[in-house]
Amino acid sequence: MSDHPPPRPVIILVEPQLAENIGMTARAMANFGLSELRLVAPKGGWPKKGVRETASGATHVLDGATIHATVAEAIGDLHHVLATTARERGQMKRVMGPDAAMQAVVGRLSAGERVGILFGRERVGLSNDEVSLADAIVTFPVDPKHPSLNLAQSVLLVAYEWRRAAGLAALPFDGELRSPPASREALLALFESLEGALDAVGYFPPEKRGGMVRNLRDILHRMAMTEQDVRSLRGVLRALTERRPDQG
Amino acid sequence: MSDHPPPRPVIILVEPQLAENIGMTARAMANFGLSELRLVAPKGGWPKKGVRETASGATHVLDGATIHATVAEAIGDLHHVLATTARERGQMKRVMGPDAAMQAVVGRLSAGERVGILFGRERVGLSNDEVSLADAIVTFPVDPKHPSLNLAQSVLLVAYEWRRAAGLAALPFDGELRSPPASREALLALFESLEGALDAVGYFPPEKRGGMVRNLRDILHRMAMTEQDVRSLRGVLRALTERRPDQG
Repeated sequence: MSDHPPPRPVIILVEPQLAENIGMTARAMANFGLSELRLVAPKGGWPKKGVRETASGATHVLDGATIHATVAEAIGDLHHVLATTARERGQMKRVMGPDAAMQAVVGRLSAGERVGILFGRERVGLSNDEVSLADAIVTFPVDPKHPSLNLAQSVLLVAYEWRRAAGLAALPFDGELRSPPASREALLALFESLEGALDAVGYFPPEKRGGMVRNLRDILHRMAMTEQDVRSLRGVLRALTERRPDQG
Repeated sequence: MSDHPPPRPVIILVEPQLAENIGMTARAMANFGLSELRLVAPKGGWPKKGVRETASGATHVLDGATIHATVAEAIGDLHHVLATTARERGQMKRVMGPDAAMQAVVGRLSAGERVGILFGRERVGLSNDEVSLADAIVTFPVDPKHPSLNLAQSVLLVAYEWRRAAGLAALPFDGELRSPPASREALLALFESLEGALDAVGYFPPEKRGGMVRNLRDILHRMAMTEQDVRSLRGVLRALTERRPDQG
């Protein structure tokens, strides 16, 4: 964690119903570094039974969640509000995918604005009046035949794209080679061992030897071996060619 | 649906346990246009009770799912296999995020290769031996403090990135204006109406009129109005300035 963590958007769930959706929302937020959750009139009250179990390690998000009676109350302190919706609303707002939306959000956050993103009810989403409280609309590039994203899945995509837009999307590990690339000298020595071993057992028809050797070298080149890889394969070759005790 | 739908990767869940994770996986796949699901030795047998309920409209994915005894059997007909993992495995494979991985996958699919993506068990992921059957590794740019993605959430991110990499990520609707941008003539007429109405009620101190008028015009310009917007605001202005009946 740096001394100055970047500002982050607020996630606002409007009348969420299912405990597991709220828990999975908290987990998805934590996966990508978001933490501020607001709940507008959660159905069945708050806290909900079973919500902590589905949040996995993200109980800090649930513990910090605030409860609001209306969307207007939940967004009062914000400067910019986005509404997520799968349906066109006949409102002439800017419509963005989560990638473009989060790029714009990161810019606003950097300029000191507080930004919130509204997510609607599981079955019916946000009302048109609730959408009309937002500056712009976020929608997802779904297959039109199966457009219904789960609530926590929508939050996940927004959180993922926020992390990318904020420049924080480093992978937790990389495929860095733990051995340097093989020198040409090591590779040529491997070629020589292999070709010598095959010569010794009469593998190459003399008239085809040139082409077959080049094919084998191509195969080995394609592996882009490290020093360690060459050592491993030379060991394998030795094991296969050494006279075995029972063949004395 | 075009006559030639693009080839798509296969999603392979290894020993999934929870019905809701399999159902949500099917739903996430359908959301972004994937349909081929393979299950390796699902715990508790197959079909699972409750799985269809969580799949929402994606029961066709479940109905088409095939069951396999081992990872080796599930990937036998494929040409390229990716393994998803949150942990480094000490295997010198290429490691990619879901975005780069799906770009590479789309290229292989276009070249006629069949590609599969392995997802491990809910608690312990893939074994090192299972990872060793893959060509490369996919991992997610999570917050290192909360790295544990839910199974269906991981599938969702892969499906979302596949759809983007395949060039299919059109938004289901856009914010196209249903009225053309206002002509300058319409805008100037609105300025004139507003300024005239304010002159009539003595709103402007004479020495400040110039600056105040420019500020108001700035505010109105910033709205980037359509023809319809200008008509709406002129109607609002007329309603506010017309002599009301009770004021005779």
